[in-house]
Amino acid sequence: MTSESSAMLRPVKLSPDGRVLHLLDQRSLPEREDWLDLDDVESVAEAIERLAVRGAPAIGCAAALGLVASSWRFSDDTVMFRESCLMACERLARTRPTAVNLFHAIAHMRGALAECPAGLAVAGVRGHLHAAALRYVDDELRACLTMADHGAPLMPEVGTVLTHCNTGALATAGWGTALGVIRRAHASGKKIRVLADETRPVLQGARLTAWELRHDGIPVDVIADNMAGALMARGEIQAAIVGADRIARNGDVANKIGTYTVAVLCRYHQIPFYVAAPWSTIDPSTASGAEIPIEERDHNEVHLHGGRRMTPAGVGARNPAFDVTPAELVTAFITERGVFRPATLSALMDS
Amino acid sequence: MTSESSAMLRPVKLSPDGRVLHLLDQRSLPEREDWLDLDDVESVAEAIERLAVRGAPAIGCAAALGLVASSWRFSDDTVMFRESCLMACERLARTRPTAVNLFHAIAHMRGALAECPAGLAVAGVRGHLHAAALRYVDDELRACLTMADHGAPLMPEVGTVLTHCNTGALATAGWGTALGVIRRAHASGKKIRVLADETRPVLQGARLTAWELRHDGIPVDVIADNMAGALMARGEIQAAIVGADRIARNGDVANKIGTYTVAVLCRYHQIPFYVAAPWSTIDPSTASGAEIPIEERDHNEVHLHGGRRMTPAGVGARNPAFDVTPAELVTAFITERGVFRPATLSALMDS
Repeated sequence: MTSESSAMLRPVKLSPDGRVLHLLDQRSLPEREDWLDLDDVESVAEAIERLAVRGAPAIGCAAALGLVASSWRFSDDTVMFRESCLMACERLARTRPTAVNLFHAIAHMRGALAECPAGLAVAGVRGHLHAAALRYVDDELRACLTMADHGAPLMPEVGTVLTHCNTGALATAGWGTALGVIRRAHASGKKIRVLADETRPVLQGARLTAWELRHDGIPVDVIADNMAGALMARGEIQAAIVGADRIARNGDVANKIGTYTVAVLCRYHQIPFYVAAPWSTIDPSTASGAEIPIEERDHNEVHLHGGRRMTPAGVGARNPAFDVTPAELVTAFITERGVFRPATLSALMDS
Repeated sequence: MTSESSAMLRPVKLSPDGRVLHLLDQRSLPEREDWLDLDDVESVAEAIERLAVRGAPAIGCAAALGLVASSWRFSDDTVMFRESCLMACERLARTRPTAVNLFHAIAHMRGALAECPAGLAVAGVRGHLHAAALRYVDDELRACLTMADHGAPLMPEVGTVLTHCNTGALATAGWGTALGVIRRAHASGKKIRVLADETRPVLQGARLTAWELRHDGIPVDVIADNMAGALMARGEIQAAIVGADRIARNGDVANKIGTYTVAVLCRYHQIPFYVAAPWSTIDPSTASGAEIPIEERDHNEVHLHGGRRMTPAGVGARNPAFDVTPAELVTAFITERGVFRPATLSALMDS
């Protein structure tokens, strides 16, 4: 791990004894830094469902580490313990349908469980799971740092970069994906300003991205989601970079609602549109974006602003949490394995 | 006036004696229907600046009628009265820079003032101004109703129409521009659903458009501004229709921030994009959109949601209140004089 990691914000972590999952509750940010201490499957699952933790890579980490913490409540009988682990995996898999990292993390933990010899006592199995979960998180963090190395050269020397949603330390094991690329570019001396789409309805941009960038001293202005187009038309944006919740085999990208509009605007204005994501976000079993389930969340997220209902009673709303950006609108994918054009990525996946 | 006007919402009106301007305070909607009673220039100007009344045609009406109400406070000396009227016009002209209807209304009232013979007593001048203001408002209302007749045939027989901001009775002398077209199409039996962009930061769509459509029994779903693109990609939107704050001689359109993005998305998805506006919105003295001043409003509008600050302290914001949509992205202009392609409109203006 590089020296950067020592002071890095880690929003999802396990207590040293492995018994408690500590989650920075992102719903309270930026007003308060509340940490949740979780030690059973149901509360880990609910924390994911209710967005205490969000961001595809961070959800995966929470599931892996949460399984370890929860496992202290399982039976000491090795057969029953394994049974409980599998049930816990099923419960965690039902929390958010779109982010593929969640299923990746669960598959990783199932794999670790399967590796344990049948006769191994519970303490041994738990120890193996503990090590596997830490390895998963460590790999995710390392992926972010490497991705940042690959992506930073693509950022302008001097200019404004648009980002959508939150893809920083808060969304990952630490450091961030798209925001990690921006961080590295800034650290390397590039004169970058960030425009952060506020990202209605949950405001991950206004609350979280702004909070992280302010923390790091990177200049940031928050804009309403409907402003980026006008600013592009005025020549005020040089690049856009976003994360991904799932990338299909053909390079289609599911990400936070509004990402697709940013991509279309970039194409129209001939501005590069980058997707930064760990390799684990690519789902070889999904042929194209059409197969990705799009979570429709509670309409109150749209009706409410700062906790206050702003629409008239009786009026309907729509709330697709994600959208799909076709591969053809992506200038390049930035991953820990390198930078790829959509056609190259798709060819790699097919081979 | 048609029979529709009798039960019509009139958000800007003068008391029968001409002494008080009644304004429906749009900041309180949809929670409460508060009316402001105004009778001096400064409070009329502040009501416009602080968005108690908004919508380009409604602002023009408020200025014309507000001048009449305010004039009861002016001197009974005819020279000083005229002086006060001109100063009032100057104050009102400083309220909002983008909407051209405001300047139209003020020019109309200055014209009425100039028509009065020098020797006419104050009562006579005031009476002439009163009549001129009522005529201005009546013309604006008639324009909306005629525009609706022209635009309704362009709406789909069955389908979903996207609109942005509020262009209804609340934004005009009554009935509405873009929303008036939708109203007429619905009344004529077309099976139309409306998707209303919430229209951050002031939420005219979520609060006002939804309130008007709900009132009329027209099906409406509110969406965050970043959702329309994804819904277009799924084939869920058949047309978009918006209003305008100013139309340049070449057909470029200044309108609420986010309009340009809707227009680009429509072009990308080959969906018709209509602008409905009274002829008075066209400004022959503005050659192109590049000359239209874009008001930058208080950044707190972006920082706050439902009155609560959601961004971290110390973080910047941007808040252009309007954007410019180039004429080439407009499928057709719907006016009280008919429906025009951009090239035709521009040729008409040049001739």
